[in-house]
Amino acid sequence: MPVVTVEMYEGRSDEQKQELVEDITDAMVEHVDATPETLHVIIHDVPKENWGRDGLLGIHRED
Amino acid sequence: MPVVTVEMYEGRSDEQKQELVEDITDAMVEHVDATPETLHVIIHDVPKENWGRDGLLGIHRED
Amino acid sequence: MPVVTVEMYEGRSDEQKQELVEDITDAMVEHVDATPETLHVIIHDVPKENWGRDGLLGIHRED
Amino acid sequence: MPVVTVEMYEGRSDEQKQELVEDITDAMVEHVDATPETLHVIIHDVPKENWGRDGLLGIHRED
Amino acid sequence: MPVVTVEMYEGRSDEQKQELVEDITDAMVEHVDATPETLHVIIHDVPKENWGRDGLLGIHRED
Amino acid sequence: MPVVTVEMYEGRSDEQKQELVEDITDAMVEHVDATPETLHVIIHDVPKENWGRDGLLGIHRED
Repeated sequence: MPVVTVEMYEGRSDEQKQELVEDITDAMVEHVDATPETLHVIIHDVPKENWGRDGLLGIHRED
Repeated sequence: MPVVTVEMYEGRSDEQKQELVEDITDAMVEHVDATPETLHVIIHDVPKENWGRDGLLGIHRED
Repeated sequence: MPVVTVEMYEGRSDEQKQELVEDITDAMVEHVDATPETLHVIIHDVPKENWGRDGLLGIHRED
Repeated sequence: MPVVTVEMYEGRSDEQKQELVEDITDAMVEHVDATPETLHVIIHDVPKENWGRDGLLGIHRED
Repeated sequence: MPVVTVEMYEGRSDEQKQELVEDITDAMVEHVDATPETLHVIIHDVPKENWGRDGLLGIHRED
Repeated sequence: MPVVTVEMYEGRSDEQKQELVEDITDAMVEHVDATPETLHVIIHDVPKENWGRDGLLGIHRED
């Protein structure tokens, strides 16, 4: 307990993901007393053609 | 705010996804006053071998 | 198949939710050939104190 | 109704997934009166570099 | 590892949920070698007014 | 972009949730270049009777 799921554009490195998992785990332990051994952080790499914002897919966006 | 996640079989085209995102965004704006700029529509392309219905994986189904 | 999940602030009426479900279902049928009988639209009503954007919970935001 | 989502490491065979879907469907029917025809079991295959536990990505873990 | 999420109508008893969690855990251990100590089964109780199928909210359905 | 979902036991205070959202947002900005204005952190408060680990619901566990 608990479980954190991160949905974001694909393309980040393993290093970035490792640092992100560390910081999220630290925040969960510090602020909501999570038990690190059973705390899962799951990352979904989403292609730009599968993410719409403001009615527009990522492949059609500048940002 | 808000976030819509669509889980469906993989294989749809970018055009289909773009039209889907437009219509879902319009529906969210019209019916629940969503703010389009911060409305995310996330699509998960699921392979047929990862989707079961009525106890049977998609790869074993006719439909 | 498929499944759509909508995460949004709590407080919308049943009428708003019914109209939203109709339009999302229509969009899924029209654009990605979904089968309406097995298409689920699941709504999660999220309290403002459980939704952060730009680092701030909804209860601390004006919008 | 209802929908079950399984997040697990990638790498299981179609046979394993089929057996898993059968047992989960049976459990849902037996214990919570689910209707199998509209019961979806969706599997997300997650790469080891996208799954952190105890602050460490799967690619850095022994287990 | 791993994580199973069950979305279903609200109203099941704790006993039903306990039996369901046991069977799902057994299935995950038997078929995909899950480690029970870090296997989470999360249940979302969804009100009927928050679940649409075939374009109709649960509160408007007979089944 | 992106979206982070936190599933945890119900019972945390608004202050804990605000601090958690701040730290998660900071981690996402620092490590994966997230844009805070469109970064959502959604918290699901899960009752103990809806969370199983190691085959046992939270209401039957000591931890």
